[in-house]
Order: sequence, then structure tokens, then C-alpha cells
Amino acid sequence: MQLGMIGLGRMGANMSLRLLRKDHELFVYDRDMAPAKALEPAGAKAAATMEELVEALDRPRNIWVMVPSGPPVAAVVAALGEILDEGDCVIDGGNSNYHETVARGEMLAARGIHFLDCGTSGGIWGLENGYCLMVGGEKDVFARVEPIFESLAPPAGYGHMGPSGTGHYVKMIHNGIEYGMMQAYAEGFEILDASEYELDLHEVAALWQHGSVVRSWLLELAEIALADDPKLASIRDYVGDSGEGRWTVQEAIDRDVPAMVLTQALYARFRSRQQESFGAKLLAALREGFGGHRVEPK
Amino acid sequence: MQLGMIGLGRMGANMSLRLLRKDHELFVYDRDMAPAKALEPAGAKAAATMEELVEALDRPRNIWVMVPSGPPVAAVVAALGEILDEGDCVIDGGNSNYHETVARGEMLAARGIHFLDCGTSGGIWGLENGYCLMVGGEKDVFARVEPIFESLAPPAGYGHMGPSGTGHYVKMIHNGIEYGMMQAYAEGFEILDASEYELDLHEVAALWQHGSVVRSWLLELAEIALADDPKLASIRDYVGDSGEGRWTVQEAIDRDVPAMVLTQALYARFRSRQQESFGAKLLAALREGFGGHRVEPK
Repeated sequence: MQLGMIGLGRMGANMSLRLLRKDHELFVYDRDMAPAKALEPAGAKAAATMEELVEALDRPRNIWVMVPSGPPVAAVVAALGEILDEGDCVIDGGNSNYHETVARGEMLAARGIHFLDCGTSGGIWGLENGYCLMVGGEKDVFARVEPIFESLAPPAGYGHMGPSGTGHYVKMIHNGIEYGMMQAYAEGFEILDASEYELDLHEVAALWQHGSVVRSWLLELAEIALADDPKLASIRDYVGDSGEGRWTVQEAIDRDVPAMVLTQALYARFRSRQQESFGAKLLAALREGFGGHRVEPK
Repeated sequence: MQLGMIGLGRMGANMSLRLLRKDHELFVYDRDMAPAKALEPAGAKAAATMEELVEALDRPRNIWVMVPSGPPVAAVVAALGEILDEGDCVIDGGNSNYHETVARGEMLAARGIHFLDCGTSGGIWGLENGYCLMVGGEKDVFARVEPIFESLAPPAGYGHMGPSGTGHYVKMIHNGIEYGMMQAYAEGFEILDASEYELDLHEVAALWQHGSVVRSWLLELAEIALADDPKLASIRDYVGDSGEGRWTVQEAIDRDVPAMVLTQALYARFRSRQQESFGAKLLAALREGFGGHRVEPK
């Protein structure tokens, strides 16, 4: 079917490619013309402006937005709200905060424009493996866009979660769980690395993929990382985050759920980003204060 | 090849069956005669006593011990130490503490008896899927028993980790990671269950198995549990532990590794087992003390 794709970063470009390979008709747009032009050999039709993209699509239009969450999504959705027609549909495939998603859906609905939120998991591997898609919004609109979801996902890899916001909600919790799982592996391998034994961590990761209880796709990625660089000597211990982990913890607080592991996993990332910890300095000062324990001077 | 199997609980019996299916010659013994007799139709030769089992095996003997860790393993290994001959080999396939394993290996080595420690993952699914085996001990003794490991494991599912103790050490950390991963899923699904939305948790678990970053074998088990009972209404919130999680935390402390998630996952299990928390009662009393906040009376 016909689809407009806005945002051609790593995710948007790969998703466009996957859809083109499955014979969908894609009109693509990005702030930069280069990534849109780069998709033309694969069959995409590049638009120079968002208006041109909208003009080119048959009504009712379906436009997938794949831009960073926060202000970029807000700007694109607001702009589309001005230029789309009644019956058109916007799909936000990024990691938007579900509260913002619900508000955007209401804003578009007031203009007769449909809105679906689609949590998209799979990262850079999705082009080949397919993306796991968690979709929220009106069920009949979901059904209208279903050929696109079906082509992006692996078999059984997409589903309608519930009303507007639920796609991003379920994706948020997915990512919260991902933080916890990653931190569990991180701590386990750190103990193995610190152990009194000379263990081959790559061999351990590879072995655990075969029949063990901790086998997973994340462990497969750990195995790949440890194969290239078993001491991870080339990587700085600095871990970013893009929001879903902290929103998960916020949601746990709002719902009175003691999500201790998900919270610790988030805080471990914060700690990794500190050049020095004010808290640790205060602890050192207090130990000196009551016990005369030596403070390490700077 | 020929093997003696001591301990025919869920794990030992299934492992015996898997080995019998692959045409190994098995002599089996358990404190109870019933599980040994139950394996006879599958081709095992049941021994009535440990001595009878030892008598029946050709030298040099290989005897797999699959009994609960702690005193049961200690008793069986000590007894074998008395009745085995130089050159024989004992394999402890259970979840023994690696410190105890190292000591047992030294005790047996003093009598010329070999000892391998084998961390065994896969649980009740291992009969069909194969067991992931992490083996510690002398490499040439490992090679001697290798046909057994190869038959128990799926392809590429066994490996020699290092000297005596390393098999149980790697398995200990494996289980520590398992605690953290399980708790990450547990917390995520608890938030989903507490959410303002009516989400189909079984559908979510099933969907995440297809292309998402959190797909894993543990998630597959969660999907099965949620299919049968989506509110988990039939299950009490009481979580046991069998040692490896707390040893992992102890090892993290011994090595100065901040294993926050693995520790929290262990403590979440402790909390699940408390009828009431003395700490929570003290908190309530303190809140009343400084702020006049009402204490809930018993």
C-alpha cells in the first residue's frame, strides 16, 4: 500500500527499505534531502518538503513519523495537523512519552485526523529480522494500516494493545525491562571479570546461548561485543538513556509499584555518567569526620 | 559410554533418560529404590546401594552425582571417597557452592580420585532441549567424560571453564543473572498489570517474543504462565531461592563489585517470604513519632 515516511534516520531509513522490498509505495521526506535521495534507487519517491509529501499521497493518507521523541515529534505532528485532511492518519513510530501521545491524539482527533502510536523494537537489526510493533489507537484505523505493520514485523510480531497511548505505554515498559535485563548481564559479567579465575567471557556468553536459562537476544549481542573485545578495552563506561527507562520508573512511582531492579538499572546509568559523585565525596568526608578515616585528596 | 548416576530426582532422572536415549550404559542409584526401578524399562541398571553401583562399574569409573547441594552432596562425595579407587572420577552436576567444590576436589585428589564440577542449566526442559553444561576441573579428565557432556547438551552447549570450581562458579553467576532478569520481567509486568489500561499481558509477552529486544527463553516461560492464568490468581507471591543468588551477591561483595540489580533481585525474594516486615513496622512507628501519621493497628 501507499505510505508517507517522515524521518529517515537509522530507523526510518531501514524501515522504508524493508517496506520497499515488500512492494509498498513509499513517499519519503527528511529535513535533509540526502537520505531521501539515497532511498530513490530502492524505489522510494523523495519529497523536498512535508507539503510536497502530503500533496503526493492519495487520500486518505497514511503517514509514518519516525523522528526523535520530544520536540521533533511535537513539531512534525503539529505541522501535519495543519496540512492534513479529515480521514488522514498519522503514525508515531518513535519512543514518545505516552502522556504526550494521548494529548497529540486528542489534538489531531479534533481535526478529524486519526493517530496511531506504535512502539517499535528491534533497532538496527530490524531491517533483516523485522521490528516488534506495539500499536495503540482506534482498532479500525489499526486495521487500515495493518499491511504496513505486517510487512515491518516478523511473523506474529505486531499487535493492537488498546486505545491511544497504549502502544507507547507498552513500549515504555518494554524498555524499562530491557534496562533491568541489561544491568543483570552487566553485573554478572563484571563479577566474572573480577573473579580470581581467568575465565573466557566470550566463551561463557556463547555457551549460555545453548540450553541455559539466561539465553536471550541481549546475550547474543553481549557475545558479539565480547568476541571483538573480551576486556571491552575500547569502550568507555558511559551509558546514555533516551527516556523510556526514567518514564518507567516514574510510572512505577505513580502506580505504587516497587520496581527496585528497574530503578537501580536506571541509576547505574546515571552513575556511569558522573565524572565524580558528590554523594561519594560526602561519604568520604563523613567517614573522616566520625572515624578519622583518611580522605583521598584530589 | 558407561556412567554411574547417583540421585534420581527431577534432574537426575531426566538426565539419565537423555543419556539412555543416546545409547550410554547407565547404572543408577537413589536412596529410594523406586526412581531407579522406574528407569529400568528405559534400559538403566538399578543398584540397591552405592556400593553395588560402584561394584558394577568398570574401572576407571565415572560417577555423576545429582543430589541437592550442601549436606547431601557432601555425604555422597565423602562416601564415594571411601569406596572408589584411584583413577575413578566423580562429577558433581548440582549447584554446589564453588568453595566447597574446591575443597571436595582437593579431598578426592589426595586419594587419587578425579573430580569435575559441572554447572547444569536447563531445568525440567533439559530432557528435550538439552542441558547447558559449565565444567570445571582437569582438562584431560573433562575430555574423558566428554561423550557424556556432549549427549546431555544441545550442540555447542557444554564447555570447559577452567580449574576445579570454575564450573560451579560460572553457574553461580549464571543464576545470579537469572535472578536479575526474572525480577526485571516481574517488575515490568507488575507495572503493566497496575496500569490504567486494560492490557492483555499474555498477548504482550507473546508479542515481545517476535523481534523485540527483550525476547528470551525466560519470557517464553512468562508467556506460558500468563496464558494459563493471566492474573496469576492461582499462585502465591512467595519466591524461594536455592543459594546461588546469595552466593553471587557474596562474591560481588568479596570482589568489590557493585551488583545492585542482582542484590535487589535477591532481596525482592526475601521480601516475598515475609509475612510482615519488622522494618516496615518500624518505619510506620517512626512516621507516627515525628509526624503524627496514623499507624495501622494489627
